[in-house]
Amino acid sequence: MTVTYTTKRTASDLGPRRLHADNINPNVKEAKYAVRGELAVKAEEYRVRLAKGDKSLPFDSVIFANIGNPQQLDQKPITFFRQVLSLLENPALLEKPEALRSSFGYNQDALDRAKKLLADIQSVGAYSHSQGAPLIRESVAKFIEERDGFSANPQDLYLCAGASSGVSTLLNVICHAPHAGVLVPIPQYPLYTATLSLLNAQCVPYYLEEERAWGTDVEAIRQSLARAKAEGTDVRAIVVINPGNPTGASLSPEDIKSVLDIAAAEKLVVIADEVYQTNVFVGEFTSFKKRLRQLQQEVPGKYDHVELASLHSVSKGMVGECGHRGGYFELVGFDPLVAAQIYKFVSIMLCPPVIGQCLVELMVNPPKKGEPSYELYEKEYNGIRDGLHKRALALYEAFKQMEGVECQEPQGAMYLFPSITMPPKAIEAAAAEGRQPDEFYCLRLLDATGVCVVPGSGFGQKENTLHFRTTFLAPGTDWVERIVKFHAEFMAKYQ
Amino acid sequence: MTVTYTTKRTASDLGPRRLHADNINPNVKEAKYAVRGELAVKAEEYRVRLAKGDKSLPFDSVIFANIGNPQQLDQKPITFFRQVLSLLENPALLEKPEALRSSFGYNQDALDRAKKLLADIQSVGAYSHSQGAPLIRESVAKFIEERDGFSANPQDLYLCAGASSGVSTLLNVICHAPHAGVLVPIPQYPLYTATLSLLNAQCVPYYLEEERAWGTDVEAIRQSLARAKAEGTDVRAIVVINPGNPTGASLSPEDIKSVLDIAAAEKLVVIADEVYQTNVFVGEFTSFKKRLRQLQQEVPGKYDHVELASLHSVSKGMVGECGHRGGYFELVGFDPLVAAQIYKFVSIMLCPPVIGQCLVELMVNPPKKGEPSYELYEKEYNGIRDGLHKRALALYEAFKQMEGVECQEPQGAMYLFPSITMPPKAIEAAAAEGRQPDEFYCLRLLDATGVCVVPGSGFGQKENTLHFRTTFLAPGTDWVERIVKFHAEFMAKYQ
Repeated sequence: MTVTYTTKRTASDLGPRRLHADNINPNVKEAKYAVRGELAVKAEEYRVRLAKGDKSLPFDSVIFANIGNPQQLDQKPITFFRQVLSLLENPALLEKPEALRSSFGYNQDALDRAKKLLADIQSVGAYSHSQGAPLIRESVAKFIEERDGFSANPQDLYLCAGASSGVSTLLNVICHAPHAGVLVPIPQYPLYTATLSLLNAQCVPYYLEEERAWGTDVEAIRQSLARAKAEGTDVRAIVVINPGNPTGASLSPEDIKSVLDIAAAEKLVVIADEVYQTNVFVGEFTSFKKRLRQLQQEVPGKYDHVELASLHSVSKGMVGECGHRGGYFELVGFDPLVAAQIYKFVSIMLCPPVIGQCLVELMVNPPKKGEPSYELYEKEYNGIRDGLHKRALALYEAFKQMEGVECQEPQGAMYLFPSITMPPKAIEAAAAEGRQPDEFYCLRLLDATGVCVVPGSGFGQKENTLHFRTTFLAPGTDWVERIVKFHAEFMAKYQ
Repeated sequence: MTVTYTTKRTASDLGPRRLHADNINPNVKEAKYAVRGELAVKAEEYRVRLAKGDKSLPFDSVIFANIGNPQQLDQKPITFFRQVLSLLENPALLEKPEALRSSFGYNQDALDRAKKLLADIQSVGAYSHSQGAPLIRESVAKFIEERDGFSANPQDLYLCAGASSGVSTLLNVICHAPHAGVLVPIPQYPLYTATLSLLNAQCVPYYLEEERAWGTDVEAIRQSLARAKAEGTDVRAIVVINPGNPTGASLSPEDIKSVLDIAAAEKLVVIADEVYQTNVFVGEFTSFKKRLRQLQQEVPGKYDHVELASLHSVSKGMVGECGHRGGYFELVGFDPLVAAQIYKFVSIMLCPPVIGQCLVELMVNPPKKGEPSYELYEKEYNGIRDGLHKRALALYEAFKQMEGVECQEPQGAMYLFPSITMPPKAIEAAAAEGRQPDEFYCLRLLDATGVCVVPGSGFGQKENTLHFRTTFLAPGTDWVERIVKFHAEFMAKYQ
């Protein structure tokens, strides 16, 4: 059946429906999320056309370099993880261990792990504790202790449906009024600005230093904070993404201390987004938790009241299991009454996906040396890590060759964020279409090559600078060559 | 290391931390969610004590009758579903079909289904389309078409992490200001009031008719609506839970028409929570979508502009896979520009758990007659359905015997919601503890028997009435006898 509606609208009569674009929640309207916006939608349309045999496009594949989605591209899941998950989904498999071993190569440690998890969660089809299954939180606490050398308490851990869900929870609790503000690095992963928009709270931007490999500039933070305070904003928290998204920057212990110094002095809650903690090529990852505990020992008193929430995820690193929506956050130094409110908040959505929780357990507690599944795990893990680094360098080399493109050396995460200098004529052409110049560039790139990247405007950037973010997940070098060729033609056309 | 904080607080100095219970988001503080509140936390503590060998409690097991969590209790997952999910988690299993069949009893249709899903989603570890994988939305559309006899469009479907997440999305978009209101049945599942609190919007309660098996009273809706409008509330939507939670009531086609009449006349968006659509003992389930399409055919024009969002879930019914967090909602009659905002909103959280999406596919597209897995599926499905009905009736019979307890005949869902008449002395004892009388009753019940139910005050109830909600999921009758015995002693004590 077909139902038709009048499309004519006047100011006083906005059509027969109750909801229209002009009367829904303005905070939802205000929110922006470019990673899955117009470009991503168009790329998906191209993919479907190609899959249906459309030969009219000037490319034969779509490269989704717009989003850190490893298993959509080349990355294979870690065998041990998926073996355990298959046993959790169908525990009947555990009844024939011999057949599992001989036909499918499952080792005893996979079977043991599945049994241990099932003893705690009962079934992956049952709701768990709203903070996450107790055994799994114990494993996460042990992982944090081993990583940092400082104790962690399962009661302070909250498993969540990917770090995004954890960030949303934290910002929901922190932002109390329209003048609540949160310091957010620019460029940033747009989850932060989008969530602050939804909460009708203030994003207080602080700019990262591109010329210093996107380092964190303490002076920039201080200035932003002072400006926001002067404008009446109640700045309550600071977000740090380390390693950085979209920048790929990796913070030094000294940089982390600078942020903690400001947090301690200004009473800012620190939200440390550490989902790329294993994607580090240069130097070594230091967690905010570890640095905070060190400082608390070194300078008794000064940092005792710092509140820190740090996040991790199964989506990134060498795990790359985004589709499973698993993650956790740890609260350090929070008032127990505030933690109780966080518990209530997460309990309204009942619990995070239980199979995703189990994947968190596997990530933080992988096979150990000497265990039967260790060798293959190690091989797969290192293979993924090395492949990522190699592709990052290849892409970096390509960018170095491109006219008007500048790129910081890859340090970590899954992204490069090169700047582009566009000819004035290209900027005029963009304006004629009512678009940001970098958005215009990325659209032309997609139309010409099938390569989907995200314009810098989707993450924020200093005025009069232009960038785009690309992942280095896609296999091969063909797509990099497509970008190089497009770029040369684009520059020539608008010269 | 131990960090200590001063606990002394004055009005002007609320401690050294930035966040405390008095300055976080007041909407979070305001939200109430009794299903996982104090009673549930205490029950979990008892469970842990028993598991650790504590013999000091007057019961030897905790019965979680507070929450519809079938697989925490007796219910086994459907074999076919879990076989397919195990293959999705470890596609390497598909390489040895003979071993799968001979050692583990997988039929060819399970293998075929896994391959078909993998061809669409690539990996359960990859992000999907934010609305859900295209193939899965096609299956859901077919299911709705077969259920209702009216067409459904995959583009109007949004997979979500359980219906709770879908409800949150819808209310986020609908509620535009503090004077936005949503009609919610009382008693209700507290997700609705909690989410409205979080959004700082108005819950406009309408009372269900207990004496008419918790039927929907059109007059009550009209009165609530008129009162709210007079108070300046912009009432935008009406929630209907059918079959009812916590009431178990099942709406007749006539009742549904009454709601749609009001929605059409008053321009209210209808949110139809239909997660218990297969848990119907009395009569037959009619969806709001079907009834709306029928009315649109019968009375051209009158219902054309009605906006309906209906929700379904893998958590309930005979599937009972709550831990997987799978569900969907369908939009009918929504402005495409509003739908675009809903898409953007869900895209901020990237996508629902992909394995949960696959479970949605299995739920709506189970093995068909003639297919190898059909017979076992049918047997398991009917076994669960009959078991639920049997337990509902047994519990109902027990309540009929109890002094001061009245209960409507079970019609559907997973709950009974009996009313209790408490002696004045018991009500005084509750007041002395600063508790609602029904909360007092449920706490005493838990302390004495280990049976955890939820007080009626957690769902809302008419003034001067008291209730509790219990699921009828727990196996056996021992726990019912515990309730009967406790109740007799409670009544005697406070006589």
